[in-house]
Amino acid sequence: MDFESLRRLMISNRTVRRFDEKREISIEELERLVELVRYCPSGRNAQPLRYVLVNDEKEREKVFPLLKWAGYFTDWDGPEKGERPSAYLIQCLDTHLGANCLWNDGLQLEAITLSMHTLGLGGCIIKAINVPGLSEALDIDNRYAPRYVLALGYPAEQVRLEEMDGSNDADFKYYRTPDGEHHVPKRPLSELILHTRN
Amino acid sequence: MDFESLRRLMISNRTVRRFDEKREISIEELERLVELVRYCPSGRNAQPLRYVLVNDEKEREKVFPLLKWAGYFTDWDGPEKGERPSAYLIQCLDTHLGANCLWNDGLQLEAITLSMHTLGLGGCIIKAINVPGLSEALDIDNRYAPRYVLALGYPAEQVRLEEMDGSNDADFKYYRTPDGEHHVPKRPLSELILHTRN
Repeated sequence: MDFESLRRLMISNRTVRRFDEKREISIEELERLVELVRYCPSGRNAQPLRYVLVNDEKEREKVFPLLKWAGYFTDWDGPEKGERPSAYLIQCLDTHLGANCLWNDGLQLEAITLSMHTLGLGGCIIKAINVPGLSEALDIDNRYAPRYVLALGYPAEQVRLEEMDGSNDADFKYYRTPDGEHHVPKRPLSELILHTRN
Repeated sequence: MDFESLRRLMISNRTVRRFDEKREISIEELERLVELVRYCPSGRNAQPLRYVLVNDEKEREKVFPLLKWAGYFTDWDGPEKGERPSAYLIQCLDTHLGANCLWNDGLQLEAITLSMHTLGLGGCIIKAINVPGLSEALDIDNRYAPRYVLALGYPAEQVRLEEMDGSNDADFKYYRTPDGEHHVPKRPLSELILHTRN
């Protein structure tokens, strides 16, 4: 695999919040995604994260109301029926292996979402979750602390990257235009580089 | 890009701690890597992480003693001269944009390390850093909090994945064999899946 192919994959791998709910995702497909996190670097190599795999429609209906979608869209309660995710991966920390997981969480979420994209899937990483509700709804033992929910499905919305101007007070909020497109402003490289020592 | 190519990239993308220090890395190459984080998902889309790019030899000598390498190797102080990294990326949080960055840190580190690997580079994500020392050595304004150091260079060691047996008390520590090879035990998929709701 060459650098430019991977770069193009990252550019086109956009967060998606509306899906074609009719299209199912099998447990085998979810397992195929989770298998990849075996190969992610892990602090102290403890590999403390575990996943609950959810694809059944009844179980999905339990999970959905425990999530808060797109914080900036105060008049939108998340995707309508028919546009909801076809599956969820619940990322949990095994608290017997540590009180935190450093960068393991994000690293694994990037590995999973990039590989989802190669399969035509899209998703949304959700932190605003009702943790006690989720643990109860999915019978998650209290040894395991839910940290993120990755909602996934076949994308049913267009997402477009927009350039930010690099000024300090530029607005970074994502927004939706009347045509239903979702727009995501991104900072220029010059803003991401603090300085160089060369 | 297909799923299996990406999977193979993840499998062969191993953490490396000894490098061919003679081979330099240009600032342009470092910029090419950091550019990719523009396309990573970001909580609230705040994109709060910044990078300091270090490739100059004198600057690298300031950074090296501020890092702690391979915590399990108590009799090893990190790579010898000639085997040290050719560059560093210092990931910093812009504290004006938030007190934490959720999963942004790990997500960006996965994007960078995967793409490094396509260029023949390897690296190590280091959390055990002398933060005040680093801020002073590299003139990092106290608005920006160093969080991780990514050490990178051309690999000069062999790293091998080993299978763990999935038992609860299995040893997950990495180790080095007398032939100099570095071994990394990885949990089986069955251990990573808490349960399925299907």
